Amino acid sequence: MSDEMTELKMRLEEAFAAATKLYQARGFQRRIGFGRKPALVNVDLANAWTRPGNPFSCDDIDEQIIPGVQQLLEACRANGHLVVHVTTCYQNTDRNDPHTDMGLWHHKIPVEAVDQADTELWAIDSRIAPIEGEHVLIKKRASAFHGTYLAGYLRSAGIDTILVTGVTATACVRATICDGLADGFRPIAVKECIGDRIPGAVDWNLFDIDAKFADVVPVDQCVDYLNTVKRWND
Amino acid sequence: MSDEMTELKMRLEEAFAAATKLYQARGFQRRIGFGRKPALVNVDLANAWTRPGNPFSCDDIDEQIIPGVQQLLEACRANGHLVVHVTTCYQNTDRNDPHTDMGLWHHKIPVEAVDQADTELWAIDSRIAPIEGEHVLIKKRASAFHGTYLAGYLRSAGIDTILVTGVTATACVRATICDGLADGFRPIAVKECIGDRIPGAVDWNLFDIDAKFADVVPVDQCVDYLNTVKRWND
Amino acid sequence: MSDEMTELKMRLEEAFAAATKLYQARGFQRRIGFGRKPALVNVDLANAWTRPGNPFSCDDIDEQIIPGVQQLLEACRANGHLVVHVTTCYQNTDRNDPHTDMGLWHHKIPVEAVDQADTELWAIDSRIAPIEGEHVLIKKRASAFHGTYLAGYLRSAGIDTILVTGVTATACVRATICDGLADGFRPIAVKECIGDRIPGAVDWNLFDIDAKFADVVPVDQCVDYLNTVKRWND
Amino acid sequence: MSDEMTELKMRLEEAFAAATKLYQARGFQRRIGFGRKPALVNVDLANAWTRPGNPFSCDDIDEQIIPGVQQLLEACRANGHLVVHVTTCYQNTDRNDPHTDMGLWHHKIPVEAVDQADTELWAIDSRIAPIEGEHVLIKKRASAFHGTYLAGYLRSAGIDTILVTGVTATACVRATICDGLADGFRPIAVKECIGDRIPGAVDWNLFDIDAKFADVVPVDQCVDYLNTVKRWND
Repeated sequence: MSDEMTELKMRLEEAFAAATKLYQARGFQRRIGFGRKPALVNVDLANAWTRPGNPFSCDDIDEQIIPGVQQLLEACRANGHLVVHVTTCYQNTDRNDPHTDMGLWHHKIPVEAVDQADTELWAIDSRIAPIEGEHVLIKKRASAFHGTYLAGYLRSAGIDTILVTGVTATACVRATICDGLADGFRPIAVKECIGDRIPGAVDWNLFDIDAKFADVVPVDQCVDYLNTVKRWND
Repeated sequence: MSDEMTELKMRLEEAFAAATKLYQARGFQRRIGFGRKPALVNVDLANAWTRPGNPFSCDDIDEQIIPGVQQLLEACRANGHLVVHVTTCYQNTDRNDPHTDMGLWHHKIPVEAVDQADTELWAIDSRIAPIEGEHVLIKKRASAFHGTYLAGYLRSAGIDTILVTGVTATACVRATICDGLADGFRPIAVKECIGDRIPGAVDWNLFDIDAKFADVVPVDQCVDYLNTVKRWND
Repeated sequence: MSDEMTELKMRLEEAFAAATKLYQARGFQRRIGFGRKPALVNVDLANAWTRPGNPFSCDDIDEQIIPGVQQLLEACRANGHLVVHVTTCYQNTDRNDPHTDMGLWHHKIPVEAVDQADTELWAIDSRIAPIEGEHVLIKKRASAFHGTYLAGYLRSAGIDTILVTGVTATACVRATICDGLADGFRPIAVKECIGDRIPGAVDWNLFDIDAKFADVVPVDQCVDYLNTVKRWND
Repeated sequence: MSDEMTELKMRLEEAFAAATKLYQARGFQRRIGFGRKPALVNVDLANAWTRPGNPFSCDDIDEQIIPGVQQLLEACRANGHLVVHVTTCYQNTDRNDPHTDMGLWHHKIPVEAVDQADTELWAIDSRIAPIEGEHVLIKKRASAFHGTYLAGYLRSAGIDTILVTGVTATACVRATICDGLADGFRPIAVKECIGDRIPGAVDWNLFDIDAKFADVVPVDQCVDYLNTVKRWND
């Protein structure tokens, strides 16, 4: 880690400590806890985000996020938990066409980079690819819930808890968690499995998320939960 | 038309006349009118609904709905109006799998008949197929708005009016119209271009729709509107 | 019942019989069944709909719908089931103000009749009024789910089944049921507790609903379920 | 400003500079711009947030946010722009009742502090209170769009741009902006009119917002826009 990054991390830790004092005194940062029937929701762990060379490429993918998600997938598959693989792409990436399904988002970020016709770009990373029966959800906006059938689908399946991984902390992961809570699910942010592409973004956003929207929980603890929750349902 | 059908139609007309009297006295059945920027929304005019031999096959397709939609498409394309082709299919059609994206709907109707893997089934009917730049929207439930990005997409494009066609009057068309109004769009039900598969269903549902949710307007009048509205935008 | 009404009912029964034959052959009209944790959702059983003299006044209220809902409420309260009382009103009923919260609906029906300032109009009918702890939901559109927090609220409470009563079959009840299914809940339409204001509307809409969106179930059977389901949860 | 705060701000500026370099190279941080028909959306500027002594009390209210919002309101009222005042409260604040309309949020933050019965708490701050015809929207979750009729309401009124103010940057303002974009509106975050209660939170969240979801624009520029946009509509 660079000196600048170390310095930033130190300052952020100080800021978080001060904030925690205020939050604790006022009743924020409560624990929502695991529920009785979890689903794993992997957000935008598709090639345009997990592989180098794309505007959306993120950090910490190979050494941290992919291995963590592999552990989670293994636990889900061993125990029959629902898995949703979320990705993003567009049928019409012409920024001059007002009829593009990018809506207004291309006026802020380079969503034209994921054309539906280029299937490799938005395919789920092969190291954590869906197996038979796991759902692939295509979304158009940041949140995996907004403008999708995800909430109704999860409720139909009796899900009450979502373990969220993916990228980015700043956008799609945070929006998914915020909506997941509002839609009536207990959101768990899997600490090591959430990434971004700018310094401090994961730290800051996970701090905000943990204070107000979801429990940020280490991957090992999530894996334990996935391996044991089945019994509670019996 | 069979004698029974004729008799039913007569009785329905009587019932609608009585209802109209009450509705008019109470201030229902108002006209919402055309707005300034329309989109055409064709609901489930895909092969499983438009061709014979499927549980979802509908009546009046070849002689009435397809020719009407062809007229509308021609007017839209000539004038650069947005067109959305809506269809329905599922990744997992195993009725015994609680993780199916059919949600709970297969407990009421045979949605397992449209498997995503069988692309021909849910492809838009070739006679009214999308051209380059027209959007194809896959939905999972009845309404083209519920659990989709349609409302945000249309609002991004500045649309204020939706001309709705397709099948069925009883389910997907009615739900789309009802949601379209709630989402802030002027819904127009194109009279000759909405179908179903049971006697009286189109009559009854269009009567309800016209009384409370949308104007039911003949296709010729819709075509005229599509051909002239552009000028109002100048 | 008038001769005309008897005649209409007969023709509708014939039409439903023909439709049922087709539906059964094609796999519609399946049973969705009761789930494990129900909520009662009473739609628009407020004075503007349940008392005479308003544009929204409905039929069959005193002798049928109110007594049925009283039975359901008693069973819910005896067993601690969640109850939601839904009503509709507007802050700004000026039809000439484009900023009215009536949105576009006043261009179809007389929603200006329920002004939020006139609280008596949209108060739940006193015969079935909420008790301490029961939720009152104000909606602006037809569906109790659309543009409200109802789905997230029910999911948070672990609800998987909604028993729906109220008015009208044509609009708010039907839209609520359709959305409830899409949002992941098992909808049950309580047969005797759903009303309207035009001849045949309840019959036709309940037929459509039972075929595609919810089970239409007699109130006695719903009361039995509410009294026994608690044990299944133990 | 304390030394610690100054130090934090400096480090954040460094981090933002590094991030900006990456973002610019990759096509983020684009400008979405003002549209043709704006609405002002003030989020949670109610007493529980704007006055001292509540768990939700925020910083910079009196000297900065209120005066800024007053300027915006004046410009909106002078020009007939739509204004929405958003607030938050709950009918049932019993944390032990699974049927509370707080949903799951009280498991993270102290929402039980805003009881609907205590109207003063969630009333809009009197210094920026609604006048006749301005809408007051009660929400239950973070976003002013999620679980509300706001999107449909704004679309019905032809709005294409939302100027967002209020608290907090971390939660309700950010969620509202993110949803506003997804729902098809151009979101503008009014720089001086957005607050929070922990050090660095406004800086960080506005940086994320500006990079991906909305333009962060000084209040003076917003006021200019509100005063001039009317003419573009003519």
